[in-house]
Amino acid sequence: MTAPYKTISVSLDGNVLSATFHAPPINLIGPDVVRDLVGLLGEVSQPESARVVVFDSVDPDFFFPHVDLTKVSEYTAEAARAGGPGDASLGMLFRKLSEVPAVTIAKLRGRARGAGSEFLLACDMRFASRENAVVGQPEVGIGTPPGAGAIQHLTRLLGRGRALEAVLTSADFDAELAERYGWINRAVPDAELDAFVAGLAARIGNFPRHALIAAKAAINALTLPTSADVRADAALFQQLVRGPAAQQRLAELFELGLQTRGSTELDLGEALGGLKAVD
Amino acid sequence: MTAPYKTISVSLDGNVLSATFHAPPINLIGPDVVRDLVGLLGEVSQPESARVVVFDSVDPDFFFPHVDLTKVSEYTAEAARAGGPGDASLGMLFRKLSEVPAVTIAKLRGRARGAGSEFLLACDMRFASRENAVVGQPEVGIGTPPGAGAIQHLTRLLGRGRALEAVLTSADFDAELAERYGWINRAVPDAELDAFVAGLAARIGNFPRHALIAAKAAINALTLPTSADVRADAALFQQLVRGPAAQQRLAELFELGLQTRGSTELDLGEALGGLKAVD
Amino acid sequence: MTAPYKTISVSLDGNVLSATFHAPPINLIGPDVVRDLVGLLGEVSQPESARVVVFDSVDPDFFFPHVDLTKVSEYTAEAARAGGPGDASLGMLFRKLSEVPAVTIAKLRGRARGAGSEFLLACDMRFASRENAVVGQPEVGIGTPPGAGAIQHLTRLLGRGRALEAVLTSADFDAELAERYGWINRAVPDAELDAFVAGLAARIGNFPRHALIAAKAAINALTLPTSADVRADAALFQQLVRGPAAQQRLAELFELGLQTRGSTELDLGEALGGLKAVD
Repeated sequence: MTAPYKTISVSLDGNVLSATFHAPPINLIGPDVVRDLVGLLGEVSQPESARVVVFDSVDPDFFFPHVDLTKVSEYTAEAARAGGPGDASLGMLFRKLSEVPAVTIAKLRGRARGAGSEFLLACDMRFASRENAVVGQPEVGIGTPPGAGAIQHLTRLLGRGRALEAVLTSADFDAELAERYGWINRAVPDAELDAFVAGLAARIGNFPRHALIAAKAAINALTLPTSADVRADAALFQQLVRGPAAQQRLAELFELGLQTRGSTELDLGEALGGLKAVD
Repeated sequence: MTAPYKTISVSLDGNVLSATFHAPPINLIGPDVVRDLVGLLGEVSQPESARVVVFDSVDPDFFFPHVDLTKVSEYTAEAARAGGPGDASLGMLFRKLSEVPAVTIAKLRGRARGAGSEFLLACDMRFASRENAVVGQPEVGIGTPPGAGAIQHLTRLLGRGRALEAVLTSADFDAELAERYGWINRAVPDAELDAFVAGLAARIGNFPRHALIAAKAAINALTLPTSADVRADAALFQQLVRGPAAQQRLAELFELGLQTRGSTELDLGEALGGLKAVD
Repeated sequence: MTAPYKTISVSLDGNVLSATFHAPPINLIGPDVVRDLVGLLGEVSQPESARVVVFDSVDPDFFFPHVDLTKVSEYTAEAARAGGPGDASLGMLFRKLSEVPAVTIAKLRGRARGAGSEFLLACDMRFASRENAVVGQPEVGIGTPPGAGAIQHLTRLLGRGRALEAVLTSADFDAELAERYGWINRAVPDAELDAFVAGLAARIGNFPRHALIAAKAAINALTLPTSADVRADAALFQQLVRGPAAQQRLAELFELGLQTRGSTELDLGEALGGLKAVD
């Protein structure tokens, strides 16, 4: 059943598929990860596939820090393989992820920022380590609104005031605050997180498939953004991330160690607050 | 003013009508309860009726455990009396409940699952005993999405991730978690719950009727599901609850004591997790 | 840059404009405040204006207690200056405030009730003193639904059940409960509030302006009420606040000291609960 992915190791236990990301050095969402996600999406869209998919990361510090900002064109080209014309974006790929006929659960340890947070938001449920999880949308601090679903999902989940706070401050949110705002389902003590998610997944995996899929489809119909909105957010991101403000800020961040394991990536929220002001 | 109901005792104090459910042995929502609800709905829709209605249950363990699953056709026929063609469902009855020109407050002790939870969600406000209240939507674990409003209300109240969790896990939620997720307004210490709700009801009962009704109508216009959505949810439920997966699971549950006072009904969330896997 | 306002003192620090309300004796929203708000709105709508505006009040007890109920026609006429025909309402003025191309942050100490709360809700973010802040919508207790945005914003932020509770009870909400319900972003310990908001404002002020404005516009597109809904709420308020129920209740409240510094204004939620019942 499982295809040979480069950055995802999968294992099947009953009706539950575990998919663990491993894209060293720090799990950036680049062409390899996106290619593998497109493949896995095809796999779990099959009618005889697992009823539940649990996503996690090998790296305890980084679930997905953000996209590989040196390879925007390359990973976008990979994302395009999941769909038709007009679908060349992570946003449309993640929207497809939200629609797979399986229940997707993200188990978060470490950092999930930018498109990493947007991947979580596209999953059906998100449970995070209370002690060791960070979510954030650093895009505005860099120079562009988020482009792969955060505008749509955070606005619906957090409401206008808190979504504006999350997106406009580009700050890091720990698990406790993320739970309070509704960004994640729950913050669970780290020592209990594995058993909690495993229990939930096994439970759902035993439930009648048709009921699961019909209920998910009904809730999706009320909550998923329109494709037009997803495409508009993606187009704006792809334009502004290449603009002068973002290029200036990214140059400064790369000098500080962006995309390497170190304090800038570990505390990106803080790093953004220390950059020079730009227009 | 008060009609002779079989399963509801009513008493009027100033502008506040108390309506207490009593349908032994465990307050199942069957034909009698639905007939009485239809009658009470007519009563509180009168312009000279009470401004506030408080609902509670005589049974400390069961507010409404769920519908009587042996009498789906019968209670549906009773629900049809509240409306016109196309309204033969609890979902449409509860939607009418949400629109009555009176303020409805549910005071929850014990379990409110399935259509019991959906009754609560149709009320204007819900306050629950912190120590002794459980809400849940067990339908998916049985083999069908909820059909009487939970998809619509929980999605709007909890957001996509938590609504998916509540509906797809079919788990029991205690009052604390239900409050955190927004399923209920507040969890109130049991010893304070009666005074809290009585105070709230009396306060509202003294307010100008026209302002109450106009404000409620304005909020309803932004939040109530369309009749088409309510009817679609009801139709799917009425079909799938009679399907092979649900029939297999219900047979197993009835063997375990479903619809009798005992551990299966007290801990239905747990019981669902222990059933055999089905397709 | 700063025009000579009568009730607002403004000061610019880098990209952050501080706007402090001072309309003695108790900061009622009357013609002077509205005229100044219209002026300030024009100022911060300029492309070269400050990127962030922080609003607070000189008076530690009253941010904005509510409108001056003796001057509804006068302040409405002032509000009309901000827009075209059909815009003669605080609701339309506040909707324009939500759309300014700057990030607006309200720092709340004291009471913000009625249109004072609606001003907060129109801002992009709201942070309140945990020990010393109260929000409330007393309108229904007086005899009319809120008319300047509370129906729209509270319903979206709090969901149906809690919005109905807030609006129909007309009760005072302290900062802790307001945070729990989502009325404000966060309740912050009073001793930390100034530094917290100043840090947030300075951080945002250094971020690229175009990204801030584009992200805010995208979130606004998903959350702001339609102008038609805002106008309908305003028209109903302007009618009912002059109706017999409201006039009777206001007469009673003015006898108790409404619009003066004293227990009725300090504890308006409680005062409303003690009035005579009306039809």
